[in-house]
Amino acid sequence: MSETETISPEQSPRAATAATWALAVHGGAGNLQSDTEHEPGYAESDYLAALERVLQTGLRILAGGGAALDAVETVVRAMEDDERWNAGRGAVLTRAGTAELDASIMDGRSLACGGVATITTVKNPISLARAVMERSPHVLLVGAGAEKFADDVRVERVDASHFVTPRQQRLWQRAQNLGESEHGTVGAVALDLQGNLAASTSTGGTLSKLFGRVGDSPLIGAGTYADNRSCAVSCTGKGEEFIRRGTAHDVAARMRHGGHALEAAASAAVADLRPGDGGLIAVDHLGRVAMPFNTAVMYRGAADSRGRFAVAIR
Amino acid sequence: MSETETISPEQSPRAATAATWALAVHGGAGNLQSDTEHEPGYAESDYLAALERVLQTGLRILAGGGAALDAVETVVRAMEDDERWNAGRGAVLTRAGTAELDASIMDGRSLACGGVATITTVKNPISLARAVMERSPHVLLVGAGAEKFADDVRVERVDASHFVTPRQQRLWQRAQNLGESEHGTVGAVALDLQGNLAASTSTGGTLSKLFGRVGDSPLIGAGTYADNRSCAVSCTGKGEEFIRRGTAHDVAARMRHGGHALEAAASAAVADLRPGDGGLIAVDHLGRVAMPFNTAVMYRGAADSRGRFAVAIR
Repeated sequence: MSETETISPEQSPRAATAATWALAVHGGAGNLQSDTEHEPGYAESDYLAALERVLQTGLRILAGGGAALDAVETVVRAMEDDERWNAGRGAVLTRAGTAELDASIMDGRSLACGGVATITTVKNPISLARAVMERSPHVLLVGAGAEKFADDVRVERVDASHFVTPRQQRLWQRAQNLGESEHGTVGAVALDLQGNLAASTSTGGTLSKLFGRVGDSPLIGAGTYADNRSCAVSCTGKGEEFIRRGTAHDVAARMRHGGHALEAAASAAVADLRPGDGGLIAVDHLGRVAMPFNTAVMYRGAADSRGRFAVAIR
Repeated sequence: MSETETISPEQSPRAATAATWALAVHGGAGNLQSDTEHEPGYAESDYLAALERVLQTGLRILAGGGAALDAVETVVRAMEDDERWNAGRGAVLTRAGTAELDASIMDGRSLACGGVATITTVKNPISLARAVMERSPHVLLVGAGAEKFADDVRVERVDASHFVTPRQQRLWQRAQNLGESEHGTVGAVALDLQGNLAASTSTGGTLSKLFGRVGDSPLIGAGTYADNRSCAVSCTGKGEEFIRRGTAHDVAARMRHGGHALEAAASAAVADLRPGDGGLIAVDHLGRVAMPFNTAVMYRGAADSRGRFAVAIR
């Protein structure tokens, strides 16, 4: 595993030779997660190591000729199963003290896509989102209807208490006392050897959010977008701001309609947000990666066929 | 009231003098609603008269100096209360035989927006969407959480049986027997004398849809978008196709990033859809109106400060 290094948009590859595959992942943008925790396993170095592990997981799929869609699902599944991230098992709790999970996935080859929102009993929301995409006539299913569909297609369900971990209960209790808010998201974007793009995003939403609130993560065009004609995008940050600007779709639209290169399109979309709102990861058909953000940190990593392999937080 | 006339995109006003206010409304795109009904009050002439009435309602607000946001909410409220349209009282029933309602609204001045989805007990979903926009920190609330919020902000609720009308029960029964599907939406877009744009959309979704399915109507960027820098848009048709293309946002993005005029942007966004998917209404800051569709019919009407007043179906 290579050493970690800081990746800023300015240092993205600009070599004439395009990468034949590329992957970027994120674990949320905002403030340092370790600011609020001093537990073993939650230091900055632990987060960097966790990012490297999921990057390796996705890299093996893509370098082996696997599909971008499989890579972005597998990476996000692994992050959903790691309690460090605000998605799946590690989801923050709503104002009511329960977890409500959202996720979406999109295939840039066909514009096929799927999303689920406000689900409480599905172990890996990203896999249910993929089932919505591939095995339903719909694009977005929410709540009990989505959970009934999970049973129909045999996607694994768990008791809602699976997500109410001791750590999240402590964070929730402090939020009640201090009025704190915390958010976070995980996501992945990939280009595969066949030239196909895909994007995925999953979240537990915002700590102490209202019951029934849906953020940008399950919404195609807001938190997630992929189109082989332009790019694949996964966003993280204050979801409402990404919805009102259609940020994920906006990056693709700036490339497709405005003729911008990936990096200019991604940077302009983030510049349209308010300072502190968040960031995004994006990859285009040439394997170029952009990861702009306007928060203190964004947990992120990128790898490609030319040997790039780096993770960063600040 | 002027006589009805056919409005096609080619006949939109192109005079040098801009309209100081403008309004467009739609009642869905697809096949003729009267194809499946021969009841008194549901003839084509009844639909045209209903479109003229709501156009007059919105016109009075805008000509009197009222806000675009008030005009698009009031027009859609009136359509939600008219059993002819697939929204509010006239919503089609889901596969489970119940009504699940979706709506959204957006203010082009501030990009403020709100949406609600899969609600079953709110008389006017568009007014709850406006309350989400103005009185919650969120942009999209779904299901029971949205209904609890309706109580918090005193938006009128009704028993779920309010929407299970004899007419919809007959349509639902026939759908069970024949495997028919029907969809429809209502929407409005407006420019006011202050130069502000707004858009609104409301629907009962697709007849026999899966429980928990969310279409494009409550989704900012998919079914509804408004941005004073470009245009206001409301879409109608096969919702999944509008979500995967971010159609409402795409019209705005083609204007903002591609430099297209309203009509070219709107036509290109509809040309991107599959034939038969639907259509949209859009208005820009010059009061130009575009209403392209690729279905057999789209129920629609437009009025402006220069005396335009016309409704059409085919």
